[in-house]
Amino acid sequence: MFSVSVRDHFMIAHSFTGKVFGPAQKLHGATYVVDVEFRRDELDADGVVVDIGRASDSLREVLTALNFRNLDDEPAFRGRNTTTEYLAFVIHERVAAKIAAGALGAHAHGLKNLRVTLHESHVAWAAYEGALGR
Amino acid sequence: MFSVSVRDHFMIAHSFTGKVFGPAQKLHGATYVVDVEFRRDELDADGVVVDIGRASDSLREVLTALNFRNLDDEPAFRGRNTTTEYLAFVIHERVAAKIAAGALGAHAHGLKNLRVTLHESHVAWAAYEGALGR
Amino acid sequence: MFSVSVRDHFMIAHSFTGKVFGPAQKLHGATYVVDVEFRRDELDADGVVVDIGRASDSLREVLTALNFRNLDDEPAFRGRNTTTEYLAFVIHERVAAKIAAGALGAHAHGLKNLRVTLHESHVAWAAYEGALGR
Amino acid sequence: MFSVSVRDHFMIAHSFTGKVFGPAQKLHGATYVVDVEFRRDELDADGVVVDIGRASDSLREVLTALNFRNLDDEPAFRGRNTTTEYLAFVIHERVAAKIAAGALGAHAHGLKNLRVTLHESHVAWAAYEGALGR
Amino acid sequence: MFSVSVRDHFMIAHSFTGKVFGPAQKLHGATYVVDVEFRRDELDADGVVVDIGRASDSLREVLTALNFRNLDDEPAFRGRNTTTEYLAFVIHERVAAKIAAGALGAHAHGLKNLRVTLHESHVAWAAYEGALGR
Amino acid sequence: MFSVSVRDHFMIAHSFTGKVFGPAQKLHGATYVVDVEFRRDELDADGVVVDIGRASDSLREVLTALNFRNLDDEPAFRGRNTTTEYLAFVIHERVAAKIAAGALGAHAHGLKNLRVTLHESHVAWAAYEGALGR
Repeated sequence: MFSVSVRDHFMIAHSFTGKVFGPAQKLHGATYVVDVEFRRDELDADGVVVDIGRASDSLREVLTALNFRNLDDEPAFRGRNTTTEYLAFVIHERVAAKIAAGALGAHAHGLKNLRVTLHESHVAWAAYEGALGR
Repeated sequence: MFSVSVRDHFMIAHSFTGKVFGPAQKLHGATYVVDVEFRRDELDADGVVVDIGRASDSLREVLTALNFRNLDDEPAFRGRNTTTEYLAFVIHERVAAKIAAGALGAHAHGLKNLRVTLHESHVAWAAYEGALGR
Repeated sequence: MFSVSVRDHFMIAHSFTGKVFGPAQKLHGATYVVDVEFRRDELDADGVVVDIGRASDSLREVLTALNFRNLDDEPAFRGRNTTTEYLAFVIHERVAAKIAAGALGAHAHGLKNLRVTLHESHVAWAAYEGALGR
Repeated sequence: MFSVSVRDHFMIAHSFTGKVFGPAQKLHGATYVVDVEFRRDELDADGVVVDIGRASDSLREVLTALNFRNLDDEPAFRGRNTTTEYLAFVIHERVAAKIAAGALGAHAHGLKNLRVTLHESHVAWAAYEGALGR
Repeated sequence: MFSVSVRDHFMIAHSFTGKVFGPAQKLHGATYVVDVEFRRDELDADGVVVDIGRASDSLREVLTALNFRNLDDEPAFRGRNTTTEYLAFVIHERVAAKIAAGALGAHAHGLKNLRVTLHESHVAWAAYEGALGR
Repeated sequence: MFSVSVRDHFMIAHSFTGKVFGPAQKLHGATYVVDVEFRRDELDADGVVVDIGRASDSLREVLTALNFRNLDDEPAFRGRNTTTEYLAFVIHERVAAKIAAGALGAHAHGLKNLRVTLHESHVAWAAYEGALGR
């Protein structure tokens, strides 16, 4: 199995609902450093897993739609706790949609799986990994 | 697959038995920076993998029982080389026992798997991963 | 010159005023990983720069007063942009006040200087350093 | 599953063929920080995954054969783009060959799998993982 | 003293002249992860050390002029060993020139000092720091 | 001011005397990741701060004399608490002695200052910096 990973980040505000969240029920925020690992079984004809420039650009676009927002105000997240693990899933879905739409090029259809990791501090991070639909 | 990871550390003294260990047969010590990755297939009703506060507290308790000890004097490790990979296994067992005992809450019974990584320097680390018994 | 450094973190929401801040004028947030470096010319009688336990506890107290807050609502910051560099200064002042008040022990009066660094992502950080008043 | 990982690095020059590489078609270079993760199901009689000294030495030998070279001039890579992901595969093959040849000791025959990761910057890395043939 | 730091990277090929460089006399290459620390005594009217967007853009422009090049072919470096420490100096000069030319805005004239650090691997880095001329 | 830094590590056992150390009064140990920053005003004739190969070798020799030891048994440290900050000072003295003895080459006499940093975990580190005698 081959993989290529790229890193970027975004900064948001949000609050959580539920006693389990303690003081995080108040409006606060986070910087998330995001790693996306693109995986496939064999390299493409150019000898790469994915066009890393397009992969980085697509991630940047996905994060720009979240960056500098108060997630409590976003219709897409109404009624959801935007936990780190849930946001990893959201970013997985959105990057997967870009791959399906061809934004990473025709060769990217050979990708099998994505892992999205969100680092929220030096002592905590969360991830979602899953297959790419076809 | 969803995961949440937390980081902590502990510091111990120990020595090893066996020629393969070279100068590490002498009494020395190590700082281990410990990452525990909690994994499950679906998020719980709060939208989390695990209550991260309880997860961190449980890891802290497990590490406190090892911290500032000479492992050569610990009955639990008699006749064993407390290598980094073996200590990863020990911590896996002890955190798994806390989950089974309910210390991480009822929702934590949805956890499927743990990965425990011990970083012993900037150039070496070891891990144990395995399913959670039920 | 001797120094000891400790690391902790906090998470806040805030917004900025001024065109220079672009999209950061919207309510968003950040995780700040905070390093405080305590400096002095000579070690104390115990052979340390500072009691690292008390130093860590004092930093934790200072950060707890900021953690999980919307800084736009904090009277202490009214009319100020709570930029990373300004927050480094604020934390410097508050840790310095704890040292002056004796919270780090009598020996801590030998400290000369503090450097406070706030990491806001993997590509940006800010710091304030200054002498300790006496 | 148990694992032990070691880190080292090498520095090379190379160029790429294909429009997808943009400015990287020009002769340039990279530092690759290399992590090799050795995996097996059970610890050996000494309580280790692998003799970490021999593992580090074998990795060093594999990297020395690449270090400070212009890969465009290496017969082994003629007609290939020496992308980060391809180089991860090459190092996987060469470390696997050393294991098969006994360079890591008789116990190393219990190893099942290797993962080789090459970090090329603070925002990009690639990996190859695969089973060890027997 | 206040500071703000930003990080970026570039990748080059080069060779060195002089026995002291051993195998690095051959054509090879490096990834340099670059940190630029901008320093001043007081914050500007917006509460910042420097417009971080402009600072990042200026650093990117300076690095783009070096990125994906064979430094042995660059007239600017004829007869010089492009060591890590020398490249830190070159980037210091070029960022300083941008500040002097107004590329970072009028407020940036309050900057006193720059520190440029180039990380060439996980075990080696070099820096140049110096005052900003006026 | 120019600088070059190299990183290595060592692992020791020790205990501390004094109530301020709490549970660290028991025999325990640590991994110290060590950074040595070599500083001078101008580059030498080869365009370097120091011969990085010799610098790394000298640091390795200094650390080998400490590695895999119980510092409580070392005559050199009798009656001293081998705190992280004190060990930074000890390594500073020993590297400085190597420079004075010519182990880093004749050009190394242009070095002005050393900074030695010991990282003991992901949340604590200590340093000593001082001029090089002549």
